[in-house]
Amino acid sequence: MAGHLDFYFFYGSIHSYLSVMRIGALASAAGVEVNNTAFTKNDVKMNYFWHDVERRARRHKIPFAGRAPYPADPELLALRVGLIAAQEKWCDDYSRATFHDWFIGRRAPGVGDHVEHILASLDKSAAPIIARAQSAESERLSKEATDAARELGIFGAPTFAIGAEIFWGDDRLEDALAFAARR
Amino acid sequence: MAGHLDFYFFYGSIHSYLSVMRIGALASAAGVEVNNTAFTKNDVKMNYFWHDVERRARRHKIPFAGRAPYPADPELLALRVGLIAAQEKWCDDYSRATFHDWFIGRRAPGVGDHVEHILASLDKSAAPIIARAQSAESERLSKEATDAARELGIFGAPTFAIGAEIFWGDDRLEDALAFAARR
Repeated sequence: MAGHLDFYFFYGSIHSYLSVMRIGALASAAGVEVNNTAFTKNDVKMNYFWHDVERRARRHKIPFAGRAPYPADPELLALRVGLIAAQEKWCDDYSRATFHDWFIGRRAPGVGDHVEHILASLDKSAAPIIARAQSAESERLSKEATDAARELGIFGAPTFAIGAEIFWGDDRLEDALAFAARR
Repeated sequence: MAGHLDFYFFYGSIHSYLSVMRIGALASAAGVEVNNTAFTKNDVKMNYFWHDVERRARRHKIPFAGRAPYPADPELLALRVGLIAAQEKWCDDYSRATFHDWFIGRRAPGVGDHVEHILASLDKSAAPIIARAQSAESERLSKEATDAARELGIFGAPTFAIGAEIFWGDDRLEDALAFAARR
């Protein structure tokens, strides 16, 4: 055997169904010995998430500089500006710049002058965009977008949707794209 | 463009970092157009989880007969028997039988005489095993296993661990096996 792996699950867990069914054959094929182990719930999800982001960043060759400041975007300003950016078709650049500034620059989105900084880096005039982001019109846009997401049954980020078919989690990005491409 | 996909995320979401960074190139390669969309939190996680289990069951050719009775294993009897099974090296068969009975037979683990039924199907004498599962010795085993899992930082099921390296979710089974095989 090349290695071994501990498998944690419990018998009230619907998420465990597929793994229980798949692990035997896959482990044999991989030459890995599986130990069945008990399961508990505790408060260290956050540690796992950070470690997991680091591990997956390495795998996908995305820069990662350790835990970024958290939480972020306390007044949803970065989000409001993102909605404007989406209307005007520069949301891709804005989003990549915002997350890069957060994870590599260590400046959390929507805090202090960080949005201004991002807008300037994209050669956008920050003041009028931020004024729009704080307007009643922006409030309405944000509410509409939130209602639409709620209607679809979206509960977590990131989520990818193809019509009403939703995929939750970065690890479903490829599945979601394959689903979209087949349509 | 072969299709399009809606991408939900927000700017306070560490999980969204990888997707924001990866989606542009992957979507181009897949010929899929991406719409950036707002995000909300609500109470329909359960609907998604069931749909997702169905979708992944189809993909992995695992039988699925719709939503199984939920919740399950109210007194952790199925779990306690599983710990005994793990000590005696018949946990794989017991676990597959338990989940098959739940998802296909629609008999939730640990309810009524379901554990007896599973044990009988494995040619085990149910009464002495269940008596052991309800003993103080079993209580101690269960507590030790739970403490060990807590120590490792495990917070959800299914989880796969290679030493202290944990992978959460059925979608990480292949990653976990690859990690274990490399060691």
